[in-house]
Amino acid sequence: MERRFEHELESLKTSLVKMGSVAEDAICSAIRSLLSKDHALAQKVIDTDDRINSLEIEIDNAILDLLALQQPVASDLRFILASQKINNDLERIGDHAVNIAESVQSLEQFPDVQPVEEIPRMVEITRTMLKEVLDSFIHPDPHAALSVLKRDDEIDELNRGVTRKVIELVRKDPQAIEGALAQVRISRNLERVADLATNIAEEVLFYTQARVVKHRAEERGEPSREKPNG
Amino acid sequence: MERRFEHELESLKTSLVKMGSVAEDAICSAIRSLLSKDHALAQKVIDTDDRINSLEIEIDNAILDLLALQQPVASDLRFILASQKINNDLERIGDHAVNIAESVQSLEQFPDVQPVEEIPRMVEITRTMLKEVLDSFIHPDPHAALSVLKRDDEIDELNRGVTRKVIELVRKDPQAIEGALAQVRISRNLERVADLATNIAEEVLFYTQARVVKHRAEERGEPSREKPNG
Repeated sequence: MERRFEHELESLKTSLVKMGSVAEDAICSAIRSLLSKDHALAQKVIDTDDRINSLEIEIDNAILDLLALQQPVASDLRFILASQKINNDLERIGDHAVNIAESVQSLEQFPDVQPVEEIPRMVEITRTMLKEVLDSFIHPDPHAALSVLKRDDEIDELNRGVTRKVIELVRKDPQAIEGALAQVRISRNLERVADLATNIAEEVLFYTQARVVKHRAEERGEPSREKPNG
Repeated sequence: MERRFEHELESLKTSLVKMGSVAEDAICSAIRSLLSKDHALAQKVIDTDDRINSLEIEIDNAILDLLALQQPVASDLRFILASQKINNDLERIGDHAVNIAESVQSLEQFPDVQPVEEIPRMVEITRTMLKEVLDSFIHPDPHAALSVLKRDDEIDELNRGVTRKVIELVRKDPQAIEGALAQVRISRNLERVADLATNIAEEVLFYTQARVVKHRAEERGEPSREKPNG
């Protein structure tokens, strides 16, 4: 029984890693399709959504079985509950990838639109946050998770920057409004992905440290030195 | 033990009902502050967010305790897992209420802006969806949950309508851009609340019917006549 449990827990982790990698790919491809104006790649992202949705259901079912059959406690239980939330967050990241890809396709009608400079910067930070938070989950590392949390403000500021630039742009050229709205949409989706990355970071901290950092910005100091068990 | 479990399950349900009612109030007040341009009410919504965040943590902790100490199975386990997701969805609805309230306050700088007509319609549908889905959870009713799912397309169409109107508006009057962006933001937040209401509907269906409707639009026929246990 014990060994079977270990095996199933390991298999849940593997599935989440797979889900994470598919979601990360979707975001990276959506972003690449934006920067290179690549219609086919954007379409590929849109088509990947079904796979992410199926993976989410598979993982949710595995979690239900694990809880029903193995009745885990303590850190295993925390890991499983965190997994359910991370699974959901990753699925939402997939949705944002689709939104970005759709905006990329809608931007094609306006070939003159140049992305405002904040967007590539947001892209870079969001991608890093997502990569780092998934790593901090795979190799449980509260310090890395915490550093992801700290980058969220940067993204919020860049998102506000995009809005400001777009307002200037449209004031000068009202015909740019559709391209401007597409950029605001892309920027907001990137901001949401960063937000979901911080949610995942909170879950990693929850299961590695058994403390709730969620909504407690004042506690965002250094994590304890205690090494979590995997 | 059995009786204590029943009691704790009932108490979890009560907490979620409270959370639901606070989140519903937040959305309704945000919407009222929009329609009546009421700065103080918008501020009240923003201030409620802390309470919603604390409630989310309390409920998550109660779920962890229930799973650890009672090791529930079958429909109780499904109910508890659904509760965790609903809790998260309600917290996100609270976040969207705050976003709307902030947009209401930012719109005050542009007193001439008239909300495009789709917004009050979206407001009405979103509010109904949220109310109905919370009712379908409290008095488990898969039919009601299913009818919430079916209204999501309406909201998506209205949201696209807002974007179209706003584009026309700005083409005629580029100075209206800031008010226009605030409306797009409000519309998108309403659309997200409707989306979260459909997530909750899916969870209600999951725990009342033990079938995953998520991402399976083709299965969105009539639910079985089986009466779920509360």
